[in-house]
Amino acid sequence: MTFRATILTLYPEMFPGHLAFSLAGKALERGQWSLDTVQIRDFAEDRHRTVDDTPAGGGAGMVLKPDILAKAIDRVSEDDGRPRLLMSPRGRPLTQARVRELAASDGVVIVCGRFEGIDQRVIDARNLEEVSIGDYILSGGEPAALTLLDAVIRILPGVMGNALSGTHESFEDGLLEYPQYTRPQVFEGQEIPAVLTSGNHAAIEKWRLEEARKLTAERRPDLLSDHPVTK
Amino acid sequence: MTFRATILTLYPEMFPGHLAFSLAGKALERGQWSLDTVQIRDFAEDRHRTVDDTPAGGGAGMVLKPDILAKAIDRVSEDDGRPRLLMSPRGRPLTQARVRELAASDGVVIVCGRFEGIDQRVIDARNLEEVSIGDYILSGGEPAALTLLDAVIRILPGVMGNALSGTHESFEDGLLEYPQYTRPQVFEGQEIPAVLTSGNHAAIEKWRLEEARKLTAERRPDLLSDHPVTK
Repeated sequence: MTFRATILTLYPEMFPGHLAFSLAGKALERGQWSLDTVQIRDFAEDRHRTVDDTPAGGGAGMVLKPDILAKAIDRVSEDDGRPRLLMSPRGRPLTQARVRELAASDGVVIVCGRFEGIDQRVIDARNLEEVSIGDYILSGGEPAALTLLDAVIRILPGVMGNALSGTHESFEDGLLEYPQYTRPQVFEGQEIPAVLTSGNHAAIEKWRLEEARKLTAERRPDLLSDHPVTK
Repeated sequence: MTFRATILTLYPEMFPGHLAFSLAGKALERGQWSLDTVQIRDFAEDRHRTVDDTPAGGGAGMVLKPDILAKAIDRVSEDDGRPRLLMSPRGRPLTQARVRELAASDGVVIVCGRFEGIDQRVIDARNLEEVSIGDYILSGGEPAALTLLDAVIRILPGVMGNALSGTHESFEDGLLEYPQYTRPQVFEGQEIPAVLTSGNHAAIEKWRLEEARKLTAERRPDLLSDHPVTK
């Protein structure tokens, strides 16, 4: 089954962007996922194709009109079970667990905001799931949508092949990944840690787990408290 | 002064990606920032242009070799004061405060990882700052680099013009943004909250602050505890 991504945006030319290349690009060519973009402006009815208006109550910036966005959403996702995401810094932070859920679904409808924001009534009326990819502000939802899709596509069935499957990854067990080393044996006077070339697999596993715990405690103590099992 | 972004990657074709359009694209045309990509593979010395090798100690995936990446980094950033970032899920989470610091600098050198990871010795030897854009796994550092650059470029001097400057934004004061509304006055039976059309500016400010606090407490209590001033 093909994972279908439908993007509602004022900048359809931003897609597929970096997703045209490498892993995601090859998967797109193979038909393992599909991408449609919908220009929100096509649903404006006035001569100037206006999609935004000033914020009620005043303030800088412009707000995307609810009626126009609702029409665009209804066109693409009526009778459609796909989750409807709205990329927004106000959203719940994206996690690898949510990425896995999305990758197991039929696809997503993603609304990309621009301007100051989107009228709250259409978010409520169309049950948009606000998703944030991080605590920083982007020029719009498009870079966030492309980032989310990259995370989802790489774990769609068959996309990575055997190359990376079964690999230990950050967040999988609530720990950041342990440090990696490869040849040459000596780089600028620094050797690969001796345990890794010892051939003692139990010792290697133990060292990696300790390093992962140490790194996580140092950089991301919040992950340890979220995952009591790793304490 | 032009903000200079130099990207070390195995996929230079992914750049400028979505940054070619809209706000970032116009700023690139106007020379408000510049972009160079460096193909890491060009620094490989063998006939097959090998850049990776198996992980010391075993395991799936491939690790980027330290010697080759070091040569690429030295070529672009010797005698160069720009921060050297490595996009990595093991990094410290990107914040709007770090975005503001980067936007105030001369530019950045960004290393995009692929494969299982990068040899730890080159991260240490070249003082790479590991940065994570969120708690999910991407196909490589490229989507993360494009996302970080989008956040930085929009706040470079002169890029947004007056349109959005001075706007209240999520994270600026440790709160998510209050809900926005615009015309029409009635959308599918729902009116704009009466306070916003009252003309009472003090009441509007109070309502917005209360809504922002309520939303933040509901969705991101972690932000409130990080910013005691907003409690």
